[in-house]
Amino acid sequence: MEVGRHIWAIAEGYIPGSSADDSRELVSHETACLLNTGDKDANVRITLYFADREPVGPYKVTVPARRTLHLRFNDLNDPEPVPRDTDYSSVLQSDVPIVVQHTRLDSRHPNIALLSTVGFSDSAVG
Amino acid sequence: MEVGRHIWAIAEGYIPGSSADDSRELVSHETACLLNTGDKDANVRITLYFADREPVGPYKVTVPARRTLHLRFNDLNDPEPVPRDTDYSSVLQSDVPIVVQHTRLDSRHPNIALLSTVGFSDSAVG
Amino acid sequence: MEVGRHIWAIAEGYIPGSSADDSRELVSHETACLLNTGDKDANVRITLYFADREPVGPYKVTVPARRTLHLRFNDLNDPEPVPRDTDYSSVLQSDVPIVVQHTRLDSRHPNIALLSTVGFSDSAVG
Amino acid sequence: MEVGRHIWAIAEGYIPGSSADDSRELVSHETACLLNTGDKDANVRITLYFADREPVGPYKVTVPARRTLHLRFNDLNDPEPVPRDTDYSSVLQSDVPIVVQHTRLDSRHPNIALLSTVGFSDSAVG
Repeated sequence: MEVGRHIWAIAEGYIPGSSADDSRELVSHETACLLNTGDKDANVRITLYFADREPVGPYKVTVPARRTLHLRFNDLNDPEPVPRDTDYSSVLQSDVPIVVQHTRLDSRHPNIALLSTVGFSDSAVG
Repeated sequence: MEVGRHIWAIAEGYIPGSSADDSRELVSHETACLLNTGDKDANVRITLYFADREPVGPYKVTVPARRTLHLRFNDLNDPEPVPRDTDYSSVLQSDVPIVVQHTRLDSRHPNIALLSTVGFSDSAVG
Repeated sequence: MEVGRHIWAIAEGYIPGSSADDSRELVSHETACLLNTGDKDANVRITLYFADREPVGPYKVTVPARRTLHLRFNDLNDPEPVPRDTDYSSVLQSDVPIVVQHTRLDSRHPNIALLSTVGFSDSAVG
Repeated sequence: MEVGRHIWAIAEGYIPGSSADDSRELVSHETACLLNTGDKDANVRITLYFADREPVGPYKVTVPARRTLHLRFNDLNDPEPVPRDTDYSSVLQSDVPIVVQHTRLDSRHPNIALLSTVGFSDSAVG
């Protein structure tokens, strides 16, 4: 069974530069959860958009067939790390249908805050 | 009146293994709220997807006609419990239209954090 | 300009019975934000669905032309109050297109938690 | 590549009038993240809707080609500032497709709370 879309956009993006907790589990981070329910690996290209300079990318990740990937933007390093304390947006393009949900854990304060939303999916390709 | 879709996907999934509060109300948990507005019971099959092994399922639940079910993933045990501190995603397939919303209550810290989003609905069946 | 849909569903619903803060602003509450961008008043009928009994409703509210209504489920009393500490879902039917977003403020703990998601919109009528 | 829609609505809107933290980063605020992936600048007109008076607008913002704009409603001043402690909704109309996501950071209490959801997109124009 294949579920999803080929193109996803996440307009919200921001990784706080500081955290009250430095453990990997609770450090401030942004995650894109990518679900590939199909029987072919998903080759995903991620482009980051900024406020005041040209887009950066593609970052390339693979979601194997019938697997989920909870990808931390904090971990993206190629072609360059994602800057902290900086507004950005992202577009994900996959060669097979996937489902994308966006979550941020914010631990700038001793108690964490969470936000999450399903991405915007589209079929437009220009 | 029937409202909803037959197939839903929740890409985000994670049950924290610890809680500052052990009451059922405030222990860390993940919920899928399933609404069946129709006049036939909804037979729902849930499949869980992981990062590094084959999908598990189906977990079977029934949402009676004109009822809502706030299902805790913590409570799913057949065919196997949902592992804690583990990334997963879920797909829900129903034989009648339903509406699905996903919520997590995170009480790893003394103050709770909440996230919620409506699932991604699709009609694709492969 | 008219924006929106006639039918909306919010699968998630739960009003905590207690709050650390009793001010109207910060008491635990659930809100449905209803936006009517059109030039005709929106007559909205709300039906509540429960886990173990028949649906209750309709609750009737009006959103005037070119107005927004941030409706607290806590304030609904006719035909009966919304029970606290109880799982429910809601369906909203409007005679003109509206946009619906759902928010909960949870103040069971000294620090508040927030969740929000746009409702699920549908055109199905049975 | 163009991704998105021309019309977006955010039914939820509320800027708390007080904050426990006055830094720009952590003061209570509402943000609409606007992503323009296309090669033409996006001219966006924002209209605010209230509970008890006529809509206000348009507020005009530009999202340059291939850029993101994380717009704080707190910063909108023309034709008039956005009132604090007041329910509102917003509609965004763009001359090219954009993607819109809504986030609130609430710092009335010492620990922050976050909410976020993708806007409701529509193509209806009356």
